Amino acid sequence: MAFSPALSRLIDAFRVLPGVGAKSAQRMAFHVLQREREGGAHLADTLKRALDTIRHCKECRMFAERELCDICADERRDAIRVCIVESPADVMAIEQHTDFRGRYFVLMGRLSPIDGVGPEELGLSILRERMAGRVEEIILAVGATVEGEATAQYIAELAHQYRVSVTRIAHGVPVGGELEYVDAGTLSQAFSGRRPL
Amino acid sequence: MAFSPALSRLIDAFRVLPGVGAKSAQRMAFHVLQREREGGAHLADTLKRALDTIRHCKECRMFAERELCDICADERRDAIRVCIVESPADVMAIEQHTDFRGRYFVLMGRLSPIDGVGPEELGLSILRERMAGRVEEIILAVGATVEGEATAQYIAELAHQYRVSVTRIAHGVPVGGELEYVDAGTLSQAFSGRRPL
Repeated sequence: MAFSPALSRLIDAFRVLPGVGAKSAQRMAFHVLQREREGGAHLADTLKRALDTIRHCKECRMFAERELCDICADERRDAIRVCIVESPADVMAIEQHTDFRGRYFVLMGRLSPIDGVGPEELGLSILRERMAGRVEEIILAVGATVEGEATAQYIAELAHQYRVSVTRIAHGVPVGGELEYVDAGTLSQAFSGRRPL
Repeated sequence: MAFSPALSRLIDAFRVLPGVGAKSAQRMAFHVLQREREGGAHLADTLKRALDTIRHCKECRMFAERELCDICADERRDAIRVCIVESPADVMAIEQHTDFRGRYFVLMGRLSPIDGVGPEELGLSILRERMAGRVEEIILAVGATVEGEATAQYIAELAHQYRVSVTRIAHGVPVGGELEYVDAGTLSQAFSGRRPL
């Protein structure tokens, strides 16, 4: 005795989502079939349409429905400064919380040879072309993880080749953070990155 | 600046799934668009097809693609014993781990007036019809939660009206469980449910 074929297939299909194992997939399938038929149908349609229409911006690799994303298409944005981030969510965060008005380049990941993610997967050939063009400053806003560091290092070297200046956003004690709860790595970064007042 | 319309809609649509909030929905959308386009398209198709074809068995409310589920359609299964469970997953568990060969009735929930789940939502009118027919024993295999208890109580009273005998599966110390780690409620249930050897 097993679930009906269509139900088994549905449970399997949900497992493609990140963080969804056998139990959650089953729970999702039951939930949709039982309580959210309309929401489920809407999800199926929206997902299909999104896969059909959403591509990567050809300049910055951000998700976009046209050739250029809204930021790259905006002539008023400063084209000489490019901020490098790992994911589209990072672009949103920077747009919301800073007054940066340059352009972006979204890596859609970070260097991780063990997972088969090399420079090509991160679209660095597109970034090279941009560095060969108008770009004057690269601002690295990648995460302070091992892979993030490696990625930053790699891009910094590229930038040096193209004689583009490179900066990296500051890592240190979070604003509002208590010193005693800050981890050792962050605290040592905060010390080595101290600035005169 | 916000995500493109199709992407925002996709993120919203994922929130229909249980346990998926704003952050996970965004993660799912990015993952599908970036790494799992095929899997995502498959999910959209499978979900649409499942919603079109999967209905409830008219006898036991289990998910089924035909009028009757495989168990209700199987003439060899004992029709006088009906096991009442809360969800389709419970049917699977009982089928896999016990030698029960009767029929089932799937409540698809439990009584919870505060959430608007009353006897009608649990399909108890169908259960009444079955009790008025051939059923001789009702086995309650609902959870040992507050709502589960209320549901069990309600169905037991129904069964008494129809002069159908009712049993409830035993609650007690799990097999392999250490007494000292068992919670108070389970331990007291285990004592009051003790049996002569």
